[in-house]
Amino acid sequence: MSEKKIGGAGLRGQSAGETKLCTVGQSGSGLTYCGYDVADLAENSTFEEVAYLLFNGELPNQAQLDAYKAELHAMRDLPQALKEVLERIPADAHPMDVMRTGASFLGNVEPENDFSEQRTAANRLLAAFPAIMTYWYRYSHDGVKIDCVTEEESLGGHFLRLLNGEEPSAQHKRVMDVSLILYAEHEFNASTFTARVCASTLSDMFSCITGAIGTLRGPLHGGANEAAMDMILKFNSPEDAKEKMAGMLERKEKIMGFGHAIYRTSDPRNVVIKAWSEKLAQENGDTSLYDISVACEEFMWDTKKLFCNADFFHASTYNYMGIPTKLFTPIFVCSRLTGWAAHVMEQRDNNRIIRPSADYTGVEPRTVGPISER
Amino acid sequence: MSEKKIGGAGLRGQSAGETKLCTVGQSGSGLTYCGYDVADLAENSTFEEVAYLLFNGELPNQAQLDAYKAELHAMRDLPQALKEVLERIPADAHPMDVMRTGASFLGNVEPENDFSEQRTAANRLLAAFPAIMTYWYRYSHDGVKIDCVTEEESLGGHFLRLLNGEEPSAQHKRVMDVSLILYAEHEFNASTFTARVCASTLSDMFSCITGAIGTLRGPLHGGANEAAMDMILKFNSPEDAKEKMAGMLERKEKIMGFGHAIYRTSDPRNVVIKAWSEKLAQENGDTSLYDISVACEEFMWDTKKLFCNADFFHASTYNYMGIPTKLFTPIFVCSRLTGWAAHVMEQRDNNRIIRPSADYTGVEPRTVGPISER
Repeated sequence: MSEKKIGGAGLRGQSAGETKLCTVGQSGSGLTYCGYDVADLAENSTFEEVAYLLFNGELPNQAQLDAYKAELHAMRDLPQALKEVLERIPADAHPMDVMRTGASFLGNVEPENDFSEQRTAANRLLAAFPAIMTYWYRYSHDGVKIDCVTEEESLGGHFLRLLNGEEPSAQHKRVMDVSLILYAEHEFNASTFTARVCASTLSDMFSCITGAIGTLRGPLHGGANEAAMDMILKFNSPEDAKEKMAGMLERKEKIMGFGHAIYRTSDPRNVVIKAWSEKLAQENGDTSLYDISVACEEFMWDTKKLFCNADFFHASTYNYMGIPTKLFTPIFVCSRLTGWAAHVMEQRDNNRIIRPSADYTGVEPRTVGPISER
Repeated sequence: MSEKKIGGAGLRGQSAGETKLCTVGQSGSGLTYCGYDVADLAENSTFEEVAYLLFNGELPNQAQLDAYKAELHAMRDLPQALKEVLERIPADAHPMDVMRTGASFLGNVEPENDFSEQRTAANRLLAAFPAIMTYWYRYSHDGVKIDCVTEEESLGGHFLRLLNGEEPSAQHKRVMDVSLILYAEHEFNASTFTARVCASTLSDMFSCITGAIGTLRGPLHGGANEAAMDMILKFNSPEDAKEKMAGMLERKEKIMGFGHAIYRTSDPRNVVIKAWSEKLAQENGDTSLYDISVACEEFMWDTKKLFCNADFFHASTYNYMGIPTKLFTPIFVCSRLTGWAAHVMEQRDNNRIIRPSADYTGVEPRTVGPISER
């Protein structure tokens, strides 16, 4: 009765709607946001420009960008009540659960009252997420109540400064910026689809984003860069990496950070972040983490013809910047929020409630007997 | 480019998977849970039996039911930290946002560590929801910190006692019980589908339920019983109702509580709850709310051939029991949690990540120009 369906399971390859936001595996390097190749955006724009693009369909001019950054800057602090909620979440909580509660509670104290406020709600979440993540992290791990406002110009720099309490280098700021661009949007992936299903009942922005965070939390979706990091840290050298990975394959252990549901030969985001990982390795002086990562890449290609996806070199990249592994997926939230919110707005523009059917495979009709006879 | 697709919009009529839990519009009165007709369950079982059925596939015998009720009973109180979070949510917050944050925060302090804990997590939410709703409601509206434990045997009675601070009548307990049975499960509706998409990334139970709550919050999904109540309260008599509804139709205003996406001629849940509304009207002495509701039903059938769905007579039913209108949809959460959690367990049993595709309708590939030339 419940055999696994091959065709159509997980709606694979089935269209669930239209979008103007993104193509995956269709043109250019393989990923476009509103017509722009992600590699082009990573080279020639900033994350704030990409957020503006996703929310408005066009890149901003200088005046628009300045106004937008000022708006986001003014929204960075957290309400006192939200800080008090974050203080009540233990240090061993899953960081994605912290983001989920943070987004939900922000919607309790600053709700989106109607859809005319949708951009404000999205921008508020975008500006507040770095502080939600780091306020909880620093309080629960170090007992420090951080100031949630910094003078950093970019959200990427703002996050690094909140985390480390000191001004990040120009290179680290730029790498964070690029990373946030790379993760911003990816069509109808599971978390984005959750946001759209939620939006299709005409629910509020905070509900949609909260649901998307919960979906990204799953190890089949977000979390691959964390798993990659955990693996890489077990290897002592490139040779050791290849030897141990061979053992993992033999034992049929899952190796994260390789292959992709849609890309077939490469992930366009990998080229970009790999180059930054190399630069950070050189800056650092100790290049072993990068060298080990390259060995993993070579090994997986040589033995399984599997390529690195966006997550694999993100691991070493984040590690070189001193970011704790458990914050990798929450950073993904800070970035993907832009894609999620853009999809919510798009769903609202041309909505029909998303309500599929199911094939029934259960028992035949029966009647309720007296409990004494069960 | 973005014309509304007629066929397939909202995945209507498309199968998104298999289920053993429910049929809608296929046999018996039109709604079955695990093979049992909902009318049969509403007549011959209790909500706790239905929860057990959905989580285990079979109705419990007496010993199983006793053990299950004892388990739920021991899980009714809220952690102190959750109470402190609820105290920080203002009285004018949307009650569904309170449920969303309550579920999310419970997952922060009592996480589902792995899937072997899925039943415990679902039962914990089931037992805690009445207190999450009423603790916030009584604190924010009346300044009272209620005791979250009662000696009421059923969850329905527990909820009424937490809300009113006194023992509910046997009839009110039974009506709550029936209401919770009627709303428990409904196949791949939007909130349940959200729970399954979230589950498909192998995320945790609290994330799945939090996302489902956010989806049920939308006015196209939950909330119809609240809208029905608001409307009914504007009518002074059956005659007045018909006259004012005629005006509403003329002005093309949306009338909530009628018709259904799948049922074509009647909603099997309406027959059941309508009969209880009548009994409560007789108990109350003042039957006007019921009489007005019947007039609405007649009017909509005579003029538009639209029938009452589950929500319409729930409005008067809840009102007769003294339940504030703003808590109607949160009660829906207390009930539907059982269906959501059962679907999460079912998705996990035979999982593939739910990741559909999209039709691209956006601009052609373009390149990022210098900001000075935009």
